Amino acid sequence: MSNSFGQIFRITTFGESHGPAIGAILDGCPAGIVVDEDFLQQEMDRRRPGQSRITTQRQEGDRVRILSGVFEGKTTGTPIALVIENEDQRSKDYGHIAQSFRPSHADYTYETKYGVRDYRGGGRSSARETAARVAAGAIAKLFLKQQGISIQAFVSRVGTIQAPPYTELDLSKTEDNIVRCPHEETASRMIALIDEVRLSRDTIGGIVTGVIKGAPAGLGEPVFGKLHALLGSAMLSINAVKGFEYGSGFDGVSKRGSEHNDEFYTEGERVRTRTNHSGGVQGGISNGEDIYFNVAFKPVATIMQDQQSVNKDGNAVTVSGKGRHDPCVVPRAVPIVEAMAALVIADCTLLARSARA
Amino acid sequence: MSNSFGQIFRITTFGESHGPAIGAILDGCPAGIVVDEDFLQQEMDRRRPGQSRITTQRQEGDRVRILSGVFEGKTTGTPIALVIENEDQRSKDYGHIAQSFRPSHADYTYETKYGVRDYRGGGRSSARETAARVAAGAIAKLFLKQQGISIQAFVSRVGTIQAPPYTELDLSKTEDNIVRCPHEETASRMIALIDEVRLSRDTIGGIVTGVIKGAPAGLGEPVFGKLHALLGSAMLSINAVKGFEYGSGFDGVSKRGSEHNDEFYTEGERVRTRTNHSGGVQGGISNGEDIYFNVAFKPVATIMQDQQSVNKDGNAVTVSGKGRHDPCVVPRAVPIVEAMAALVIADCTLLARSARA
Amino acid sequence: MSNSFGQIFRITTFGESHGPAIGAILDGCPAGIVVDEDFLQQEMDRRRPGQSRITTQRQEGDRVRILSGVFEGKTTGTPIALVIENEDQRSKDYGHIAQSFRPSHADYTYETKYGVRDYRGGGRSSARETAARVAAGAIAKLFLKQQGISIQAFVSRVGTIQAPPYTELDLSKTEDNIVRCPHEETASRMIALIDEVRLSRDTIGGIVTGVIKGAPAGLGEPVFGKLHALLGSAMLSINAVKGFEYGSGFDGVSKRGSEHNDEFYTEGERVRTRTNHSGGVQGGISNGEDIYFNVAFKPVATIMQDQQSVNKDGNAVTVSGKGRHDPCVVPRAVPIVEAMAALVIADCTLLARSARA
Amino acid sequence: MSNSFGQIFRITTFGESHGPAIGAILDGCPAGIVVDEDFLQQEMDRRRPGQSRITTQRQEGDRVRILSGVFEGKTTGTPIALVIENEDQRSKDYGHIAQSFRPSHADYTYETKYGVRDYRGGGRSSARETAARVAAGAIAKLFLKQQGISIQAFVSRVGTIQAPPYTELDLSKTEDNIVRCPHEETASRMIALIDEVRLSRDTIGGIVTGVIKGAPAGLGEPVFGKLHALLGSAMLSINAVKGFEYGSGFDGVSKRGSEHNDEFYTEGERVRTRTNHSGGVQGGISNGEDIYFNVAFKPVATIMQDQQSVNKDGNAVTVSGKGRHDPCVVPRAVPIVEAMAALVIADCTLLARSARA
Repeated sequence: MSNSFGQIFRITTFGESHGPAIGAILDGCPAGIVVDEDFLQQEMDRRRPGQSRITTQRQEGDRVRILSGVFEGKTTGTPIALVIENEDQRSKDYGHIAQSFRPSHADYTYETKYGVRDYRGGGRSSARETAARVAAGAIAKLFLKQQGISIQAFVSRVGTIQAPPYTELDLSKTEDNIVRCPHEETASRMIALIDEVRLSRDTIGGIVTGVIKGAPAGLGEPVFGKLHALLGSAMLSINAVKGFEYGSGFDGVSKRGSEHNDEFYTEGERVRTRTNHSGGVQGGISNGEDIYFNVAFKPVATIMQDQQSVNKDGNAVTVSGKGRHDPCVVPRAVPIVEAMAALVIADCTLLARSARA
Repeated sequence: MSNSFGQIFRITTFGESHGPAIGAILDGCPAGIVVDEDFLQQEMDRRRPGQSRITTQRQEGDRVRILSGVFEGKTTGTPIALVIENEDQRSKDYGHIAQSFRPSHADYTYETKYGVRDYRGGGRSSARETAARVAAGAIAKLFLKQQGISIQAFVSRVGTIQAPPYTELDLSKTEDNIVRCPHEETASRMIALIDEVRLSRDTIGGIVTGVIKGAPAGLGEPVFGKLHALLGSAMLSINAVKGFEYGSGFDGVSKRGSEHNDEFYTEGERVRTRTNHSGGVQGGISNGEDIYFNVAFKPVATIMQDQQSVNKDGNAVTVSGKGRHDPCVVPRAVPIVEAMAALVIADCTLLARSARA
Repeated sequence: MSNSFGQIFRITTFGESHGPAIGAILDGCPAGIVVDEDFLQQEMDRRRPGQSRITTQRQEGDRVRILSGVFEGKTTGTPIALVIENEDQRSKDYGHIAQSFRPSHADYTYETKYGVRDYRGGGRSSARETAARVAAGAIAKLFLKQQGISIQAFVSRVGTIQAPPYTELDLSKTEDNIVRCPHEETASRMIALIDEVRLSRDTIGGIVTGVIKGAPAGLGEPVFGKLHALLGSAMLSINAVKGFEYGSGFDGVSKRGSEHNDEFYTEGERVRTRTNHSGGVQGGISNGEDIYFNVAFKPVATIMQDQQSVNKDGNAVTVSGKGRHDPCVVPRAVPIVEAMAALVIADCTLLARSARA
Repeated sequence: MSNSFGQIFRITTFGESHGPAIGAILDGCPAGIVVDEDFLQQEMDRRRPGQSRITTQRQEGDRVRILSGVFEGKTTGTPIALVIENEDQRSKDYGHIAQSFRPSHADYTYETKYGVRDYRGGGRSSARETAARVAAGAIAKLFLKQQGISIQAFVSRVGTIQAPPYTELDLSKTEDNIVRCPHEETASRMIALIDEVRLSRDTIGGIVTGVIKGAPAGLGEPVFGKLHALLGSAMLSINAVKGFEYGSGFDGVSKRGSEHNDEFYTEGERVRTRTNHSGGVQGGISNGEDIYFNVAFKPVATIMQDQQSVNKDGNAVTVSGKGRHDPCVVPRAVPIVEAMAALVIADCTLLARSARA
């Protein structure tokens, strides 16, 4: 079950970076959702390589083909198969890593676990796999839109450059620049930093912040399916992610209870909290406030510099990045974070239908 | 499946804070493990309330009764039922919250989701539920010990007081003080802070660091069962947790790839890395180095101060903590973090047996 | 997951025949169901040993204790732990099988699989485990009753004595005799046969027929969760079951399509079928007609006669049944079949809530 | 999870009869299995329509394309995506059922459950979906062959024509005739019956018997994952199946314990049983003897005769089979039964690796 995610609304992904195709089956998607294929492709384009000068220049059309589960433009309740052919399969670029282990890549661990690996472009461990998640996530978003729920993510940090809190930002501006930070001045500095890092043949990490608006109270399945545990699991499954926090997160540890607690009040019919250190989740269940969280991405492991390593025989070797890679992964990670969040919320929306007799 | 965790080595927990009992069924535990009941009880005692002046003074014996799955001192491969009777059921202490929602507790969300809740002591949302995890985790530890794997956790931070990195500490000293920080000088300051916070009728957060030593390369089931995603999911399911990071974690985002990458070298027959920003996990699979991670806990929501809130009818009310609560949760969270880590590693150990034909 | 059953409405059972207790956790039960404990106990009493002269004379009170998940008489949506203490633990009765393998029992296979077994009374392989299912199934029945769905089973065959088809019977008479066959004349012959078999120190098989009325169209989750596949899986998990068929079943293979097909017609607003060879299920989904099925039980393996076998060392031994056993299992299997059917239908009822957006 | 089957060795299928393609993802397949693509195609050809005069004359090449999980001819431990394009999409053939419900088909139940359906060729409810199972099952067979386990099925009954017990047959002759019954004289009578049924524009049912040889003792995960329960669930998920029995099956109900019990004896080092009414499974775990079972198939619902039915508006209509259909499904069901059995045994083989510490 290692390649499946979700209980009812559930994806199973497949595919290697340089195999014939990647894709996913989305099972448990309710019937009757109008599938806007243009929207699917837009989402794919947000993740696509080659979209701007600060991403890898590798070119992939990333066209999604729907093989099942949609009839006359609507989901039918049967599994939806999504396939994306790999167009750019320059396998010769990767011959140099067939025998060697790239530092901080998965070459060594896959080899050790399975005794065999598709070394071309990292094979299954390539972030290319996440394209399938974006396609399935787009369908989840269409379902959630019907329920009045929106999922947005943006780049809140690159290296040490930090954007203001999301509550001070206009998230509709996220797509206005190539780094996907809705704060224009910060975005400019982030882009400059990524340019500099790229020119020095290096890479840099960053943070993507996710915000879910319009989710009703009642989502989440404690004790092990706490909403934030599901979101955390989803985010930590994305390539290069090193950490997850929601609400006050790691900053919350320094706080006193008296300043951290979110007092309740009533706004019309609705129970609300005055502050939202809880991040919209209390006891693992959404409370109707914004759900927000941060996802930490490490610097990309492939750098255009010589590094010491070993090969399969245990001999010392020098490896160096070749080809076309991202200097910073976060701009392209934004739609991936959104997709995984959408899958979690869609699943929780269906699970919540069973809470009462 | 919301109260189950794990694929093969799998626990299902039950119980409310003030119901007759709490407990767990541990299914999928391999046969032939010698169950040291004294060890089980020791682990329970590390989590038990009333163990020191900086924890809640509520008293529970937390005696574990094994109802099945163990015969003549050994596991039999059949489900192991673990039951802990609730001795200290002062239900009247909790009458005041039957109608009101305590800030940053789960009262409101459970009520909204299920339309009914056991309000006594937080019911199912109480951290008392984690006692069952500690019992099951103790059995996981006994299994892992056979495999040469150890799981240790300690308090690395309380408020803003931070211990040195784990690599500079002697983890065998963790139990030497009541705050469970193996760095004596830091521990003293932590205890002083917790004392101060308690006297001010407030609470404070902290961080528990977990370290897994002796795990072989090959644990973890990408892409969704990445080892760190499973650990993250496990930790985020613990009450009051707000964040999880492993290896370089959130600090890693500020680093360049050239400083963050862990170069490989050979030590005898073994492939090792010179640094360990990866936290022992690459591509979601363990690489044989130490696995380490941080878990952020918020300040306990129950404070001995008046707070504004609302009741079920939406009217404003003042609520105030009563009874006996922890001023800081991290000292008692140490065995819980260890238990959840042990459950994850035990499960991954079994899953890894299927990696090759 | 071998001791769990169901997707959302899910039980996990535990316990050995002669351990301290048996029981189950029922997870995913919706909140708000009024739990009639008298009804629970009545169901237990229908399965209880010692209830009549044609069942084992072993005595167990089979009192169910609810440890969690029910508050002020109602389910709360949290896991319901059900525990039944084993009162009659005459372990000495079973010393003779500690080293030997009883024919057609699970002694040899458990020993071989796990390398250790609780041999007392068959341990985990004892049909005593099904008491936990009956307790959980009683709660499922209470839920289904709210939905207008009833589950009834009865003994339709003992040896070669066959009752008329269910459509010709008054199922309300099932409890009127000790063999649980609602056709009085057939029941008398069945009882006479069981008496005869018991006196000859032998055992005999039989068939239990299950009938589900009031189920709406739309239950079942093809392609692998077809309603009849879930029912079949449930029934085949009951001790001593050798076969399952629904609708026309094995007799259907001899039929022509033209006589087997169920033509549709309209009855008021409702689409119905004139015949019901489909057994209320088409394409794995209920169609609103009665769901009915047969479950074949082999003769009980424990007989009061000498049999040849081998012991753990591979040496030939003679084994002979001791103690108090059922000459025919079907009268006591009726509530077990009902319980398992109720668990399946409850789960499908919840799953069906996710069929449409 | 309705379109997934298996715990570790797990398939998820997709696809409609007349959509672009059908297929499956096989997750959890161990690394290192040599994938013989010719064997895969042979298995597909055994299920393929148009293979003989007694099957449907619909033509499909049923070429399997492997999109992932196999590298340089070997499985890599990553998910294996298998896709079969639908070539013969004569959608106009099915226009007549867009508004009407065919008797004993899934038209009505899918419509009722999902509110929408792909009516072309039965859509998802078509037996065409099983082609994906055969492809995945072929890989399971390759894995099992390494373990010395063989899976064979054959037609043991058509209508009332019954072959001798499998122990009296040479199963290597199964492919020698078009009906796949290894008893030549019986096969001739079966073929004659199917010819007669076809000419009368009708259909007929039958039984497929499965035999698993070489399985070690220890497979099966009681209590809910009993080996025969998993096999039963697998078989009952196949289109048109009405019943499952293993070992003595329904005939066993008429037997006395004294004649039904299988006595143990020792053959060299090995513990064996003199008879095998148990069907190779005791207490839900394999005992090392042959595992055998029967699967009952109803007559195909599509007949070339007028039948009364209703349409979506509830009005009476006459429907009649059109196009090219199987007069009897069992000859083509043989490889499907084998595939599902192989999937179960492969999964149990991996699960059994976790039985002991």
